[in-house]
Amino acid sequence: MSTTYPIKTLLDRVTAIFLRAGLNEVQAPALARVIVAGERDACTSHGIYRIEGVLRTVKAGKVRADAVPQLDPAGQGGIIRVNAAGGFSSPAFELGLPQLVDRARELGLAAMVVNDCTHFSALWPEVEAITDHGLAALVLCPSYASVAPSGGTRPLLGTNPLAFGWPRPGRDPYVFDFATSVAARGEIELHRRAGKPLPEGWAIDPEGQPTTDPVAALAGAMLPFGGHKGSAIGTMIELLGGAMIGDLTSPEALEFLGTTSLAPRHGELILALSPEKFAAGRPGNPFERAETLLTAITDQGARLPSSRRFAARARSQAEGITLTEADVQLLDRLLDLGLDAV
Amino acid sequence: MSTTYPIKTLLDRVTAIFLRAGLNEVQAPALARVIVAGERDACTSHGIYRIEGVLRTVKAGKVRADAVPQLDPAGQGGIIRVNAAGGFSSPAFELGLPQLVDRARELGLAAMVVNDCTHFSALWPEVEAITDHGLAALVLCPSYASVAPSGGTRPLLGTNPLAFGWPRPGRDPYVFDFATSVAARGEIELHRRAGKPLPEGWAIDPEGQPTTDPVAALAGAMLPFGGHKGSAIGTMIELLGGAMIGDLTSPEALEFLGTTSLAPRHGELILALSPEKFAAGRPGNPFERAETLLTAITDQGARLPSSRRFAARARSQAEGITLTEADVQLLDRLLDLGLDAV
Repeated sequence: MSTTYPIKTLLDRVTAIFLRAGLNEVQAPALARVIVAGERDACTSHGIYRIEGVLRTVKAGKVRADAVPQLDPAGQGGIIRVNAAGGFSSPAFELGLPQLVDRARELGLAAMVVNDCTHFSALWPEVEAITDHGLAALVLCPSYASVAPSGGTRPLLGTNPLAFGWPRPGRDPYVFDFATSVAARGEIELHRRAGKPLPEGWAIDPEGQPTTDPVAALAGAMLPFGGHKGSAIGTMIELLGGAMIGDLTSPEALEFLGTTSLAPRHGELILALSPEKFAAGRPGNPFERAETLLTAITDQGARLPSSRRFAARARSQAEGITLTEADVQLLDRLLDLGLDAV
Repeated sequence: MSTTYPIKTLLDRVTAIFLRAGLNEVQAPALARVIVAGERDACTSHGIYRIEGVLRTVKAGKVRADAVPQLDPAGQGGIIRVNAAGGFSSPAFELGLPQLVDRARELGLAAMVVNDCTHFSALWPEVEAITDHGLAALVLCPSYASVAPSGGTRPLLGTNPLAFGWPRPGRDPYVFDFATSVAARGEIELHRRAGKPLPEGWAIDPEGQPTTDPVAALAGAMLPFGGHKGSAIGTMIELLGGAMIGDLTSPEALEFLGTTSLAPRHGELILALSPEKFAAGRPGNPFERAETLLTAITDQGARLPSSRRFAARARSQAEGITLTEADVQLLDRLLDLGLDAV
């Protein structure tokens, strides 16, 4: 049995759950938007599944449910700075976005720094919010120590997502968003819940030995994607999205949190670039040149990243979002009990 | 038998070779600097080995030996624009660097676009030129179609290097610089020269089937590192370092060049970021926070990227650069014959 909701209905329902749990009028709807966007796009690891983690983090006192993000008036030049005030990253991002877009159009490129935020969401909603304005976007953040650096034996780096978007006028943007670990932590969690072994090469156990046991993997360390290259990119994300912006690196975030079962606190770095400014005065049109390349990828049978997600979105927009009976009951219970449900 | 040269002596000798081959007083010393830096750091694939490729590209008329790069006075905001005027990228980068550094310090971040350049060098010399000024650097460029996108069967992307640097006051910087293919094209070339098979997973043959034959690989396509994630990053580099900056993507560069045996023509994107600006007003020191992270990597026995290179550099600075007899004879022949040697 399953139930199908119009997107708007599910959005209202998830917002009500967050309000019931004590999140304020700034936090609740912003969080609901990213969670429903995940469910809409069939990204189960960033959909309804994430609500309980959000509520557990609130209940543990590790995030401020009443936070009101502040746009730093000292932000100038190419840097827009938003302090999430100990709340979630999503409302802080929404607050800074208009100024980021303006500044990138003016200067050619600009950065938004979000500090003091708790982060649980995918990065593609932010990437797409920027590509919607005709700008390219590069977004990254640490998470908490759970990945061993290449050649190492212990968790140090986070799963450190990297996301990028390129605007395609009149079409879905080119978007990727992935963990710099072989797998996202959520995928290992889903294997654990399903009682399924992990593919080889995903993780090492607490003794630093290869393992396919999701429980041992969660107690040990995940591995970076692509060997030393992915490890280097994960390290870059610690440096740019942690040290550089004056916020926590993944080991510092784990120390702050004391557990890997709650959403981590740290900062986030968002870059926006204007193809029109960068290509000004040059022959050819940057968007047409990009289309030629992207078409050549699909013409040889390769798939663009996010294409399954955009297909799921189109279905959800036409037909609504279908939830399993278990998810419907979960939502009912969360709305009924609030923080007592977790 | 081998010969050891002081760095300066080798620099003069390589400069003389380029002047003998007809490169002007702007191109020759800038090229010699990056080639000798490669040899000094024991990066054989970007050292002396590259000289013949440079000369072949000059002889084929695919690069202007007399080019004088121009700093675009219209470059403003966060974008510094240098036109290489059909010459090599290195002198164009050197021309724009002071303004890039100034602008990044002023705005917090800035970009240098190099257009209309021929590119053969590693990216780490440019990264290190930026970290020398206390700034973080991200550098990328397309190359020419030689890598199949993940799930594809034919060359489309370039080996598209990505390089990053973080300044470490009083120490060698944190630097990585790698091809987004599993291997650099130069490594496959070296296997071909040595008559050695490739490791599995590096390449596909002209029919799209896996191969370990370097000749078949060079005729077919290389594979991206890290599967679909590396493929996505390689595509991002085409979009940012090609389409966005109004310059050639890798398939366009191959079409322009007509061969993969000469150095490709395209553009390059260089980002510089100021940790001091990004961390301003935040608790803690970004450089100290970075040291804590980097020390934790080496403390668990993992190696930082470029550490072998820096060790080789220290040896070369103390003892000079030792060349094989074959390389010494090659240099003699190139100095004697100029373009007639290739």
